[in-house]
Formats: sequence, C-alpha cells, structure tokens
Amino acid sequence: MAYDQNNIFAKILRQEIPCIKVYEDEHTLAFMDIMPQADGHTLVIPKYEAVTLLDLPTSELTHTIQVVQKIALALEKSLDAKGIVLMQLSGEAAGQTVPHLHFHLIPSSIHTLKNHASDMADQAQLQIFAEKIKAAL
Amino acid sequence: MAYDQNNIFAKILRQEIPCIKVYEDEHTLAFMDIMPQADGHTLVIPKYEAVTLLDLPTSELTHTIQVVQKIALALEKSLDAKGIVLMQLSGEAAGQTVPHLHFHLIPSSIHTLKNHASDMADQAQLQIFAEKIKAAL
Repeated sequence: MAYDQNNIFAKILRQEIPCIKVYEDEHTLAFMDIMPQADGHTLVIPKYEAVTLLDLPTSELTHTIQVVQKIALALEKSLDAKGIVLMQLSGEAAGQTVPHLHFHLIPSSIHTLKNHASDMADQAQLQIFAEKIKAAL
Repeated sequence: MAYDQNNIFAKILRQEIPCIKVYEDEHTLAFMDIMPQADGHTLVIPKYEAVTLLDLPTSELTHTIQVVQKIALALEKSLDAKGIVLMQLSGEAAGQTVPHLHFHLIPSSIHTLKNHASDMADQAQLQIFAEKIKAAL
C-alpha cells in the first residue's frame, strides 16, 4: 500500500499535531492512544514510513520490537499491569484505522478490551498515565 | 513467572506431541493453531523458555519478530490475506492460555475474529493451509 503523508501519525511525527509522548528515540515514538481500549493503552510506532508490518525493513523492525518490549516492561512496573495485550493490525481488512504501522500495548485482557478506536479519553488522565510510564522507563 | 516445562508448546518443542509445522529454524517454530480464530491462524514461538514478551532476551526477540514478519508475508501471499491481526498475550490476566510466549498471526479482522481457543479445527484442513503457507515461504 502506498504511504499517505497525511495520516495522523505522520502529522504527529512532523509535530504538526500533539501527542502525549512516553518515549522517543531516533527511530521510534511511543505515545498514549487517545481512544484507549483500557487504562495505559500505549502505541509504539517506527518513524519509518511503513503502512503495515509487512513493509518494515529488518533493522527498523528489530529496533521497534525492542522498544515495544521496553514499554511493556514499563507498563507492568508503573501500572502494575498483570496482563498485557500486544496487538498490531495490518491492513484495513484487519481493522487498521491509521495507515502508519503501530503496535498497541494494552494493559488488559483480550476478553474485556473496549472496542478499538471508539471513545476519546480525558487528556489530563492520559497525561497522568504517561508520567507514570515515563518514570518507569 | 516461572517456566512450566509441561506446557503444551514445550511438549511440541520436545516433539512429545505433534504439530502442523509451517517453519522451523534454530531459534523459532511456526505452526498452525489447532483452535484457529480464522482460516490460516498461525503461531510463531521462540524455542527459548520465555513465558511472556517481557521475559525474552533481545537476540531471541529480534529474531522471533523477523520470523513473525516472514510468516505474515507468506500468509498474505498464500492465502491472499487482505488483513492480518498480530496478537500476543502476556500473562493469564491478558488471556494467555499456554505459558510459553507465542505470537498469533490471524488472517482476519479484529472485528470478526472467532473467540480465542474455543473450537478445535479439522486437522486435514489445517494441513492444507500449512502446505500453502510453506509453499509461499
């Protein structure tokens, strides 16, 4: 699939719109999902312009998954998450809503997750979660 | 969490019980989920004894995610999957049923997935999917 420069995560990466960031390095960004499926729902994205998992070059992929693990550990530590759902949807047919590769980390159970991208969260509450997660990194 | 040597994936890795394999190398194994949430549902596991994503050493993690991507590409090619759900559950509280780290690759939509680990599939049908996937690797 061709990469759309106007997708919301591309705009976040260009700092045209804000995000509640928990981690950033040269190749990745992690931030709070604004429509969380559970408290602490965090997204990890490569800065590389990939639409799906299938598009990401090896070096970016191996770095991104290490950041995913790092954030998962921080979620466990900061929010006392007993279970973490890692989810990544490739393709609109899978339910992908933003066409920039993103890994969901959701401190919850697959059986009790709220619907994907359904309700906007309170920004102040997200900021509190972000501060806790950052403190655990 | 302590690793339980008697979990079903440990037994598969020791070849004490069979699996319908699609890929194997020194560090990973990929095989058909016997309770698929959609046609083509494949599991990728490291051979390393990790219970969750949080337990896997970096070198194993970076290798495993490359195999996950490789299998995802094969699912797209062999089964004409338009969407692929990658899911990995860490902890019983997340819904993890087998205490050996596993990545689910499900050619489906998050909105139409069948329940996790609910119905046993026809083995002959799984074998047909496995042959198709292997041919695309």
